[in-house]
Order: sequence, then structure tokens, then C-alpha cells
Amino acid sequence: MEKRYCIQFFFIIIISISVFIFEYSRNPTKTHRNTNLRSTSILDDGVHNPNHHFTDTPLHPLDPLTVPEINKVRSILSAYEPFSSSFPSINALSLDEPDKSQVLSWKTGDPLPPRRASVVSFVDGQTHLLTVDLDLGVVTGDVVNVGSGYPMLTSEDLTTSLQVLYSSMEFNNSILARGVDFNDLTCTPPSPGWFGPDEEGKRIIKVRCFSSQNTPNYYMRPIEGLTVSVDIDKREIVKLTDTGRDIPVPKETNTDYRYTTQSPFSDVNPEINAMSMEQLRGPSFTVENGHTVKWANWVFHIKPDIRAGMIISQAMVRAENGEYRSVMYKGFASELFVPYMDPDQSWYFRTFMDAGEFGLGATAMALVELNDCPRHSYYMDGVFAGADGRPIIQPNMICIFERYAGDIGWRHSEIPAMGFDIRESRPKVTLVARMTASVGNYDYIFDWEFQTDGLIRVKVGLSGMLMVKATPYENIYNISNTDDMIGPLVSENVIGVVHDHYIAFHLDMDIDAPNNSFAEVNLVKEETLPGQSPRKSYLKASRKVAKTEDDAKIKLKLYDPSEFHVFNPGQRSRLGNPTGYKIVPGGNAASLLDLDDPPQIRAAFTNNQIWVTPHNKSEEWAGGLLVSQSKGEDTLAVWSARNREIENKDIVLWYTLGFHHIPCQEDFPIMPTVSSSFELKPVNFFDRNPILNAKPTFQKDLPVCLATSSY
Amino acid sequence: MEKRYCIQFFFIIIISISVFIFEYSRNPTKTHRNTNLRSTSILDDGVHNPNHHFTDTPLHPLDPLTVPEINKVRSILSAYEPFSSSFPSINALSLDEPDKSQVLSWKTGDPLPPRRASVVSFVDGQTHLLTVDLDLGVVTGDVVNVGSGYPMLTSEDLTTSLQVLYSSMEFNNSILARGVDFNDLTCTPPSPGWFGPDEEGKRIIKVRCFSSQNTPNYYMRPIEGLTVSVDIDKREIVKLTDTGRDIPVPKETNTDYRYTTQSPFSDVNPEINAMSMEQLRGPSFTVENGHTVKWANWVFHIKPDIRAGMIISQAMVRAENGEYRSVMYKGFASELFVPYMDPDQSWYFRTFMDAGEFGLGATAMALVELNDCPRHSYYMDGVFAGADGRPIIQPNMICIFERYAGDIGWRHSEIPAMGFDIRESRPKVTLVARMTASVGNYDYIFDWEFQTDGLIRVKVGLSGMLMVKATPYENIYNISNTDDMIGPLVSENVIGVVHDHYIAFHLDMDIDAPNNSFAEVNLVKEETLPGQSPRKSYLKASRKVAKTEDDAKIKLKLYDPSEFHVFNPGQRSRLGNPTGYKIVPGGNAASLLDLDDPPQIRAAFTNNQIWVTPHNKSEEWAGGLLVSQSKGEDTLAVWSARNREIENKDIVLWYTLGFHHIPCQEDFPIMPTVSSSFELKPVNFFDRNPILNAKPTFQKDLPVCLATSSY
Repeated sequence: MEKRYCIQFFFIIIISISVFIFEYSRNPTKTHRNTNLRSTSILDDGVHNPNHHFTDTPLHPLDPLTVPEINKVRSILSAYEPFSSSFPSINALSLDEPDKSQVLSWKTGDPLPPRRASVVSFVDGQTHLLTVDLDLGVVTGDVVNVGSGYPMLTSEDLTTSLQVLYSSMEFNNSILARGVDFNDLTCTPPSPGWFGPDEEGKRIIKVRCFSSQNTPNYYMRPIEGLTVSVDIDKREIVKLTDTGRDIPVPKETNTDYRYTTQSPFSDVNPEINAMSMEQLRGPSFTVENGHTVKWANWVFHIKPDIRAGMIISQAMVRAENGEYRSVMYKGFASELFVPYMDPDQSWYFRTFMDAGEFGLGATAMALVELNDCPRHSYYMDGVFAGADGRPIIQPNMICIFERYAGDIGWRHSEIPAMGFDIRESRPKVTLVARMTASVGNYDYIFDWEFQTDGLIRVKVGLSGMLMVKATPYENIYNISNTDDMIGPLVSENVIGVVHDHYIAFHLDMDIDAPNNSFAEVNLVKEETLPGQSPRKSYLKASRKVAKTEDDAKIKLKLYDPSEFHVFNPGQRSRLGNPTGYKIVPGGNAASLLDLDDPPQIRAAFTNNQIWVTPHNKSEEWAGGLLVSQSKGEDTLAVWSARNREIENKDIVLWYTLGFHHIPCQEDFPIMPTVSSSFELKPVNFFDRNPILNAKPTFQKDLPVCLATSSY
Repeated sequence: MEKRYCIQFFFIIIISISVFIFEYSRNPTKTHRNTNLRSTSILDDGVHNPNHHFTDTPLHPLDPLTVPEINKVRSILSAYEPFSSSFPSINALSLDEPDKSQVLSWKTGDPLPPRRASVVSFVDGQTHLLTVDLDLGVVTGDVVNVGSGYPMLTSEDLTTSLQVLYSSMEFNNSILARGVDFNDLTCTPPSPGWFGPDEEGKRIIKVRCFSSQNTPNYYMRPIEGLTVSVDIDKREIVKLTDTGRDIPVPKETNTDYRYTTQSPFSDVNPEINAMSMEQLRGPSFTVENGHTVKWANWVFHIKPDIRAGMIISQAMVRAENGEYRSVMYKGFASELFVPYMDPDQSWYFRTFMDAGEFGLGATAMALVELNDCPRHSYYMDGVFAGADGRPIIQPNMICIFERYAGDIGWRHSEIPAMGFDIRESRPKVTLVARMTASVGNYDYIFDWEFQTDGLIRVKVGLSGMLMVKATPYENIYNISNTDDMIGPLVSENVIGVVHDHYIAFHLDMDIDAPNNSFAEVNLVKEETLPGQSPRKSYLKASRKVAKTEDDAKIKLKLYDPSEFHVFNPGQRSRLGNPTGYKIVPGGNAASLLDLDDPPQIRAAFTNNQIWVTPHNKSEEWAGGLLVSQSKGEDTLAVWSARNREIENKDIVLWYTLGFHHIPCQEDFPIMPTVSSSFELKPVNFFDRNPILNAKPTFQKDLPVCLATSSY
């Protein structure tokens, strides 16, 4: 048991490293501090340790590769002639999903469609896109990438980059000159982006470092102006920028956010009595065969994914006649673009593509029970492959819970004037699937929330740490012109650099069937004719069905509003209305960068908030399959430039949720969660309100909880 | 006891009638049906019946008038010479709040500032705006309104209009011709709006009727095309429109939404285990002196208001040093504009101003325990005056509860690569104050949610019934050109007319003191200079402080984004940043009606999403004080046209939250709640994250609940 746990934990470390971070350690004291840190964390909740994964078998065509399957892929690859000399580094290894038709025709009890794995491996300077057939036991496809872009970096790559870094006299001198103790040195490899010819043809890591002196929150203590670009294949420094020696490492040390190091609760911030959501008979949902969630009128398949983090598949809702009706075949976060707004030498390249460069699943740590997710949550582990092709368990990576927030599903009161005295109300209970990605400093909280009225809400929360820039200034009175600042001062010597976040969601809607159409229902002002009405104007809805992709490239406009419907042209409601779902935007932000700025070219999926494309298995990643240093020739914008037909076709809806973030002092040293969301809402999909007969809550339905006071 | 209850209930009926609805009853069977309806409602929760109101005394300068005070006002008015002949009809009677300076200088224990009542009374064709001094026992002010607009209608007015209506042979013939049983007749008086000279100088009620045959949901059974305009002072019909005799009353009768009449739960809509939010030691908030709420680091005053529904005053949050700091002096829903998009004779005038014409508090019925508000909620009653000047109790009109929705206050995980193994997360618990207004068919849910990180979220939910239009069509195949429809078919013979909702919030922000300024922090694209950087562009925040009102008339723009700050120019953070709050819009909609369309003139506060005005006690109601039939010369847009100075002044921030509503079949026969919100968020108000030392939840902190299963 214990041994296995250690093995798993080791795996976690490996993949974590392989993901994007590595801390240099030149003496054993680190280990001690490490131990101390562990002992002071609040992980006493004890992460689940499900050893049964070692005998998992897939039960659904979309189930992720199991531990045995991953091991089998590894042995197949070992026997693959080109790799026989030495096993290659595995940059990605996951299920190659069967074709949609195979999945849709599959019924429980049927044999699974052929199990295949897609593997990305960087060998001898080339990126191999491999297909491995587990049933045949052979590699059935091996395509070498000829375009730009590299796969995710591995732990070896990162180790290499740091070895090169630390063997550099110039680097070490700079660290010494800045008075930073090597034991406090923490270096991270932000992605290099793509900025022109001098960095092409080589795999680059741009390393920057921090001082973790007296705090685990090293993000708040950057060593400014020191950036080292390493060619990890040639094992040489391409460029070392050292412009900030005069900029002090921020002194503020009260940045530790761990509970165990906080001063006890003061009157200033009084304790709130902890709460939990309780049910008399426990949760109403079940998880069958490990990945199929059934709750109320919903059923869907959910799985962890090393890149998307979490994938919802075959979401179906029950209709009046008791049959499940398809709503969405596949939904997931496809790419996450985070451009920082500083053209400075050591900052311009910080234009991250978190899903494609780091992986939202790869950076998803185990959720903190009772805090990340409420009591009675169901936890799901991630099963991935590491750089060595061996299986890795990410424990408690997804949680699923039923949610009651005191909201109202529907209500009406009648004025009790003679006649009707009615007060009816229904509580809103929903189901949430959540995962969180800690992509370095930033934490992303992804929620998929399902409602009994058919609505799906997708919510993204942002927390974690700012990426800050050190500055000589301690307060803004020292600053001659604050308008020149690239962000506000959030602590002494610390600037919170202005940045954006854009999360592109791939929403393969299948309203009752794969073939759907997209309609824009535009609200237009109509002027009345003279004498027609005392009113001068009113709004009228005009519906326009998109024929090709260009018709569905949407920029949201407050003063030219529309509803955006995905509907099934072959399906009508009882009254003859097209049955569909609409996407309902909430708060959003748009990218304002130049269309020909390299980061914007790579993240061109942010050129519109909404896109619609024909379903294409090779078009899943809005920023491209191979994102590192890519030039953006494999993005949603490029695919969609073909302006393909999308009417009555199997179409995919794309929505990008954006945030502008001008930091403030409240974001220091850790950010209160900021969130935004959008909704997928049934529109004439049901013949009437599907929760008309929802049950109200009565006292007798509620649990009896000890020591709870009641008004 | 019982007797008192009956008296109170009678009062509720009276005010309800006085609000806007009256059902004609010409035989006793109504009473029986009434009884049946009562017996089949889910009101067994039993509405609180707080008799102590009869001895209430005010304890805070902003406390609403008490029952004894209202009685005193009535006796003072009775003795007022002009009214000595006959007691006038009271259209409004509420506390005349003391000047801000008096309230701010008041300390607990001090004697209250002079208690005054402001009264609106319509006497002999004139609107009197009266001020009554309760200490002096005299009327100290009596101003006759010379502008347009009338006060809210009274029960007598409505009775009159219906008497006139029913004595009309033409009306009765039309009802007979349509085959509607007079016993099923339910008539409501929508507001007439303002549409030109022929309706000016007289108080008009435009009555429309429904058939409640076999359903309490009469809204779904309109008698189309029959509209009667009654001059309630001359007691005569001004105009009778009867154009729809060929349009059938919609037949669909399965529109009853009451639980007791629903078919038992089917597999199609399985039962969800009821949930409640539970705490080991009960709620963490207290309500002192009836209206002062203390929770976590917040304290604020809250009171029911017959017009605004709910008023939050003197919201203060505790700072690091333990002192309470002012955030908002007064916040409330000022007006609610609901234009329907149909120029038709019987529809064009449906451009409601729900707060000013009907009253959000006057239409707030008792909340349904466990369904409108969660278990352990604190309920507050409304104390108002009826048309006869006598006190009325609206029981359980506001609820206050602590909320845990499974959300995360802040979090961060560190990659457990050698060095840091950290997983920290804090649950988000908030405090919600809620009231719901049932303005005829529509239900509005108003939430003010307070967070420990200083954020205030204002959320509006829409539920209840659509205002529908009868049509000969049973499905859209019968309709030659659906583009000509003024709304979608939502049931056989029923059209859901397209409409908007606009809720204007009055937000008197006092960041640390009354004198504040408003700044727009605009994000602007900057182009880099040749050779400056490999980046071509980036965003920069440029801050502009508004000098006058015109500088702060804001239309939100996705592609020209800004933050909107209210800050205290005399107050700086530790680092020298201006301390303030920003308003963070969420989803919103803008009015597209002609600026010179009568409804838009009256609701000109929707011409911008944000306005800032200097504090002015007479500028509280964005659509004007006297809204019925007003011409819009007393609106926010008119006040603000003076373009007054607003820099370093006591300013009021106005925000309008909008919804476009294109109905769908899911909205029939009752609408699942749709909601949107905006936030008031601290920006450099705190020197650092104020919830850095928030406590995580541990198992031991949670209640022990019986019969709850746990994974």
C-alpha cells in the first residue's frame, strides 16, 4: 500500500515536472524544507489512493486509456522498430477516440470499438504523431510534423535547460550580484511564444527565476530582468538578458498564504461558521462505470484529460416521453490564451497558451476536500502517461457534487385579492462537475453546471497568484508619470502587470442528432408607420440561418443584439418551432491586440467570440495541436477561413470567454476568485417548462442536523 | 390573535388591490373557489405573524415608519384643515429620511433626528406632496404638483374603473360574444403609459381581461383585442377597443402550476433529494434593532420600501485596523422599465414602470419558506400604509440568509516538484438579502449578496408568467410569414410577445466619506515602436477622472473596454493608490427604442448603462417621482442634462441592468428563472487581500446530519 502510494506520488512529481516547472536543488536542505512544507499543509484530508486503477478496464468507447492500456501502448512502442534503439520521450499519450458514428451506434453491452492511442513523441529533432492500435498491438500511424510548433516539453527538457542555465557563469554572477541565496532560487520556464526567425528551428525555453526566501510564495519575489533563452537540443544559451540588477527583489515577505502560517483569526476578520449542503437521503446522482453520471433528467460521460482538463461527452436530457435526447456530443476547454501587456525584453514573450503548452489536466492537482468541493462530493482520478510512457494517477482531479445555493427554479405569487391566493416557489438544485488547473502562478476553476430545466452553465474562476514585475518604486508618489506604468503597484516594489485571459470552449452540439444548423436571431428596431400606432418604435426578432462559416463569425454587440441558436432543422416542436439550444453570453472581454501581432496570430480564435465549424476530428484545439513556438497556421481561424458549409451539418460551436485583468492591491499576495460564465439554454427544445411539476421543499424532506440553530 | 391576523390579512388584500389588481366578483361562488384555492396552496409553512409591530419604536434614523407612527401621521392628516371635510386617499406614505449629514453624525444612543413622513395624496384632481412632522404633530409642507404624472392608483380608483367597465353594454356584449363566463372574468388594469394629448389631463386606466376558466393561471388565457380606457375621475369610458372577437381565448388549460394540482412525480422528472445549507453552530449573522445586519466584516441597515422593495443603507466593511469603513450610503432598485414590442392597438401602451406605477414593495408577497429562501433564513416584515392611511403588515417580505454554494473564495496549488507541496483553498460563504416582487404576471427576485472579500453582488432574477397575446394560430405551419410575428408561438393560440426589462439601481457610494470622484480606467491598445519589442501591440490602462455628469454617461463597449471606479480623492492606500470600488457589469442589454418614442422618453435612464449624478435628495427615482402618465420631465436623463460637477462631490452611481426576452415554449406556462447581475468590487480599497487569513473548512467544523450518506 504505502509503497504503491510512494510510487504514485513519484509519478505525480514526474508529470508535474514534465509539465512545466522544476526547482533547482543543489543541496539536501531542500528535502527537509520540503518535508516541513508538507507537514504544514492542510492536506490532512488525505488524498484518495485508488489502487484499483491498476486493474481498470474500459467500459465505454470514450473511457480514457486505463493503466493496463497505457502499459500496453508503452510495450508496443518499445517494440516499434524506429524506437527500438532507445525508448523515445513521450510528450502526449491518450485515447484516440473512435469516430463519432461508432460511438453513437454503440450500446451498453456491445463490444467496444477498436481501442487506439494517439501518441506525440519528439525524436531526433522531429515530432512524430503516432497512432497505436491496442487490439492489433501495432503502430498503425506515424506522421512526422512538417509545420511549425513543438509538443509539450518533458522533464528531461526542463532539467537540461536548468543545467545549461546553472553552468553559466554569467547567470551565476547575476544571481550573486543580486544577493540571492542559491538555496532560495526557484526557476520556472515560461513558454517562449513565437517571435520571429532568430528563434525558429530550435526548441527554446526561456527561464526566469525567483527568490523563495522566507516564503513559499516565490511568485511575489521575482528576480527582474534576468531571462535566459536555452536551446535545449543544442544544450546552449541562445540569449541571456540581464537588465534588472538595479531592481531589488521585492522585500515583502508576508506573502505566505498557508493556513498553518497565518496569525490566528482576529476580530477584524471574524470566523464564519462553516457550512455544508446536506440531504436527508444523500446525493441524488450516481456515477456508473466510473465515468457515466446520472442525475435528475441528465446523463453524460465525463473524463479527465491531460490537455483539456475535463471533457463532457454525450450530454443527454430526458424528454417528456421519457427518452433521453442528445444535447451535446462533446464539450471542453480547448485553449487558454493569457497575453501579458508588457513589451519589455523580459516580458514581451509572456503570451501563454496554457492548454496546449502546459496542459490543464497535467496541472490539475488533487482537489482540497471540503474547500475546493463541498462535503458529499464524488471524486474522480485522472489516469495519464508520463514522459517515460508509464501511467500516472492524478488523484481527486475532478469532483462532482449536487448544489443548492438558495436560488429559485421558478416562482409566482398571486395578489391575494378576492380570488387567487397563491404563493408557489421551487428551489433550484443543480449538479456541478469541477476541476481546477494550477498553471504555475494562476489557478483556473472550471465548472460545468447542469440544471433540471435543461440549462448548462459553464463557469471559469480565476484565482492563485498574479504574475508580477519587480520595480524600484515603493509607492506611486515616487513615480513621475503613473500613466507610463504597465500595471498598478500592488505592493512595495511589485507591479501587477495588466493581462487578459481567453478560454476557448469547443462545444460539439448535437441537438437530437449530429446534423444541426446555426441561426442568429437578431433584434432589430422597427419604426412604426405614420398613424399605425402611438408608439414610434419597437423591436422585432429576425432569424437568419448561417450557410457557411463566415456567417457565424460573431462579435458580440450590445447595441446590435442577437440570440445565437444551434437547432435541428429536421426536428420541430409540437408547435412547429425549430428545437434547439441557444448560447447565452455573460460578462466577456475581447482581445484588442493587432491581428498581425505574433501572439494574436497564434490565438486568432479570440478574433471572434463565436465561431461555428463543421465537425472535424482534427480540429479540436483552437490554438493548434502543437502549440509551443507555433506560428499559428493550425488554429480555428485558419480552419474556418475555408468558409465551409455549416447548414444542416454536424457542426461545432466555439465560444471564447475573456477577462481583462487590471490588478489591484486586493490581488496581493493571492487573488480572491473572479469568475464569469456562459450558458447553453434550451429554446423550444422542450414543448413546455420541463420543471413545471418540480417538487417544492418541505420541512420533512430536510435532514436533521445536530447542534444547528434555527430561527 | 386570530382576529388580529385576520385584520392584517385584510390589510394585505386592501394594499394588494390598491397596488394594481382587482378581480371582479359578482357572486359568492368566488369566495368558495377562493377557499378551495387557499386550501390547495402550499402555504402550510405558515406565514409569521408578528403582532409586536403594533408597539414598534424606531431605533435608527433610517428605520421605516412604525405602526404607531403611521397611525400618528393619519391623525395629523385628519386634523389638517384642507382635509378636515373628508380624509383624502393616500397614494404614498413613508419616512421622509433625515438629511445625510444628520444620519452620518448620529450615533447609537443619540436621540433620533426629527421623524418626518412624506405623503402623496390625490385630492380634487390635484396631487399633494405633503410633509408631516411627527414630533411637531403638524403638516409642515404641502406642495401641489404642477408637472405631469399622477401618483399610484388606489383600490377605489380600480374599483371605479371596473364599475364603469361592467356597466358598459358594449363591454358586456363583447364578453358574451366571446363566450366567456362572467364568473371566470378576471380584469387587470395595466398602466396606460403616456401617448399624447387625447389622454392628458385625465387619470386613465386601461383595463384588459382574462378568462380564468379551469385555471388560476389566467394570464395564459387573455381576451385579446378588448381594451377599455376609463377616466376614473369622470367615471366614463374614454375609449373601448374591441378588435379581437375572432381570436379565440387560448384553450390550453394545463397551465396550473400549483404543486397540489400536479400529477405525481414521474420517472421523466425524477425527484431530487431536497437540500439545505447547514452549520454546526448556526448562522453567523445577527439582526440588531430590527434592521441592522452584522455579518463577518460587514454591517448595514436594511428596510422594506413600498416602492423600491428593499433599501440597503450605510453598508460598511471592517478594515485591517478593525474600524468600519463606509462603502455605500444607500442602494436600491430605483425604477423598472418593461416595454413590450407590439405597436398593436391593445398592446402599444404596455410599457410598464413597475416601481413607480405599482411598487416593488407593494407587490412583494410573503416569501415561501424553504423554497424562496433556504432554511435558517431570517425574515423581515414590511410595514406600510394603505390607501386609507392605516398601517399594513407585509409578512416575511425580506429574507436574509448565509449562503454556501460550493464556490471557492481563493485557492492555489503548487506543483509538488521538490520544494513546495501546497494545496490551499478557502470556501466562499456569503450573505444574501432577498425580496421578490410579483408585479402582476412577472416575478422579480432581488438579491444583495455580500462577500467577505468586500464584494457586493446585486442580482435580479425573472420568473412568473409571460404576458402573452392570443392568436388564431395553433402552430407555425398555419402562419404564412413568421417574420411578421411580434413574438414566438409558445402554446396553441398563444404568442409570447418580445419584451425588455430594465432595472435602474441607485447606488449612493460613499467610499470612506460622502465626497467621491468617478474615474474611467480605459484599456487602450498601444503600438510598439519599430525595434522596441518583438511584440507589435499591448494594452495600457489610462485613467480619466470625470469632471461633470457628461463625462460619466457610459455606454458599455466590448471593443473599447473600461473599468469604472468610484474613489475617494482624499484617501490613498498604503502605496498611494486611490482607494475605491469599481462597478463590474455582467450580462446586460441596452434599449434600442427611438429616443423620442414616448416610452423611451419616460425611461430615458436606459439611454446609458452608467450615469453619475451629484447627491440630491429629490433625485431618487430614475423615472420620476410621479410616474403614472408622466411625460418624463422628471427623469435621471433630465436631471443629468444640467451637466453638473461631480468631481470630489457626494455622488450617486446609477447602473441599469437590462434583459431582452424573446420567449420560448420553455417559458410556458411559467418561466424558469433567468437572472443577471453586476458587482461592486473593492479596488485598492484594502491594502491587501482581506481574506488572506480566511479559515479553511475542516470536517470537525461541519454539522452532523442524520441519514445523510457520504461517499
